[in-house]
Amino acid sequence: MIEAAKKSFDKQGFMKTLGAQIIAIEIGIVKIECSLKDGLTQQHGFFHAGVITSIADVACGYAAMTTMPEGSEVLSVEFKTNLMRPANVQKIIATGKVIKSGKNLVFCEATITDEKEEKIFATLQGTMFCIQPNTKE
Amino acid sequence: MIEAAKKSFDKQGFMKTLGAQIIAIEIGIVKIECSLKDGLTQQHGFFHAGVITSIADVACGYAAMTTMPEGSEVLSVEFKTNLMRPANVQKIIATGKVIKSGKNLVFCEATITDEKEEKIFATLQGTMFCIQPNTKE
Amino acid sequence: MIEAAKKSFDKQGFMKTLGAQIIAIEIGIVKIECSLKDGLTQQHGFFHAGVITSIADVACGYAAMTTMPEGSEVLSVEFKTNLMRPANVQKIIATGKVIKSGKNLVFCEATITDEKEEKIFATLQGTMFCIQPNTKE
Amino acid sequence: MIEAAKKSFDKQGFMKTLGAQIIAIEIGIVKIECSLKDGLTQQHGFFHAGVITSIADVACGYAAMTTMPEGSEVLSVEFKTNLMRPANVQKIIATGKVIKSGKNLVFCEATITDEKEEKIFATLQGTMFCIQPNTKE
Repeated sequence: MIEAAKKSFDKQGFMKTLGAQIIAIEIGIVKIECSLKDGLTQQHGFFHAGVITSIADVACGYAAMTTMPEGSEVLSVEFKTNLMRPANVQKIIATGKVIKSGKNLVFCEATITDEKEEKIFATLQGTMFCIQPNTKE
Repeated sequence: MIEAAKKSFDKQGFMKTLGAQIIAIEIGIVKIECSLKDGLTQQHGFFHAGVITSIADVACGYAAMTTMPEGSEVLSVEFKTNLMRPANVQKIIATGKVIKSGKNLVFCEATITDEKEEKIFATLQGTMFCIQPNTKE
Repeated sequence: MIEAAKKSFDKQGFMKTLGAQIIAIEIGIVKIECSLKDGLTQQHGFFHAGVITSIADVACGYAAMTTMPEGSEVLSVEFKTNLMRPANVQKIIATGKVIKSGKNLVFCEATITDEKEEKIFATLQGTMFCIQPNTKE
Repeated sequence: MIEAAKKSFDKQGFMKTLGAQIIAIEIGIVKIECSLKDGLTQQHGFFHAGVITSIADVACGYAAMTTMPEGSEVLSVEFKTNLMRPANVQKIIATGKVIKSGKNLVFCEATITDEKEEKIFATLQGTMFCIQPNTKE
C-alpha cells in the first residue's frame, strides 16, 4: 500500500498549498517535511499550529494506510495536538508512526521536530479509520 | 481586546493562505469562515481535516484572547479535533467559544459546520495560554 | 437498547466501587451521579480527575449504546478530558450525549457538573466503537 | 521533589481504592502498578478504561511534579487516552514521562502496559499545571 499512499497524498490539494512532501515512507512510518514561507505563519512569524497539525495528521494517515489491505482508503477519526514550544525554524518534519493497526481502526502517533529531528515542537495522537474496499462508514 | 484579536488575526499569513475571515467577534465568541478552493482539499476533494482544525483553533484562540487582560498574547497549548463526517460543502464556519477563562489558561470549544450552522462536520476542544504583558512561559 | 445499556452498566464492578448510578437514560443521553467519599479523592480532598473521567466515559459509552443495533456491545476508543476547576462538591453528575452515531463509531460529549448541573468542572469528548453482533474489531 | 510527589500520592484516597502503588520514581518518570480485582472491572471483566486512565494521569502528574520547583503543587489540565486493546491481564503498569517541562505547564505522556511492559493497552497524552508556592490559577 506504499504506492497507494503516495498517490493519495498527491491528490491532496492542501499538501501542495503547504509545499509539504513525503521524504520517507515504509510500512507503518511516514515522514513529511515542510518549509517555512510567509503563507504558513501565525501572528509571530513562526509555523502555524494548523500547519504543524496538518502535516502530522497526514503523516499518521498515510502511515496507517501502509498497514491496510489493498484497495482501502483512510479517513481521520480524531487527533490531538500538544504544542510544546514555538516552531521558530525554517523547516519542520512530521514523523507519523502506527502504534496499533486493527481491522477498522489504526492508532498512530506523530512528532513534529526540526530538520535534525532533535527538537520536538509538538506531538500528535490520532485514530485513523480504514474504509475497506466496498464498505462505507 | 476585540480590536487586538482582529489585529493579531490579520498578522497570520496562514489565514490569508486559507482565505479565512473573521465574520463575527464578541467577548468569548469568534466565528471564522472559509470557502473551498483546490488548494484546501484532501484526497477526495473535500475540506482537509487540517484546514478544519486550523480555523477552529484560530477561532478558539481569538475567542480566548477577547477575555484576556489588555496587552496579553495568546498561544495554543493543545487541541483535539473529532471529525464526524466529510465536509463536502463549499463553505465552512468555525465557531469558537470560551467555556472557562482563567488567569493563565482559557478552555475553549469549537464546532465546524456548514454555512447555515446546521450540519456539524467536526468539533474541537482546546486549551489556550495567556501570555500576560511582561511575562513568558 | 436502553435495557441492554443498564444491564451492561450493572456488570461494571468499577461503577460499584465508585458508587456511581445511572439516574437518567434515554436514546442518546445518559446521566450518572457519584457522591464523594474518602476513597474517591485526590490529594486536596476533592473528586479525583480519574473518577470524573470514569463516570463521564461510562455516560458516553452507554449513551452511545442506546443508539446501536440490538445485540451490539460498546468499547471506548478514545476520550479526552479537560478539567476546568476542582470538583469541590459532595456530588457530581456526568451527562453523556451522542453527537453523531455512525455504523462503527459513535462520537459523544459529556459535561461533569455539580448536582444542579450549573457549574461545569470538566468536559469530555470521546469516540465509542460499536461491536455489532457476530463481529470483532 | 521526589519525596513531595510520594507524599502527595499517599494523600490520594482514590489511589488506595484502586490499590495502586508507585513502583519507580525518578526525575521526570513515575511508574504505577495496579492489580485486577472485581471492583476495577468493566462489563467484560477486564480493567476499566477509567482505572487505566486514572493511574496514567497520576503517573504523569507526579512525573511532572518531580520537575517542579520546591513547594509546588500539581493539577491536571487535560489528558487524552487512546485505548488500543482490552487490558485482559492481572496487573497493569502505567509509566508516565515528562516530555517538556515549562514554568507553568508540563507536558507528559504515559503508556499503560502489561507487567512485562511489552504489550501496550493504552497511551495517554496530558498537560499538567504547576501551582507554584504562593500562586493560584
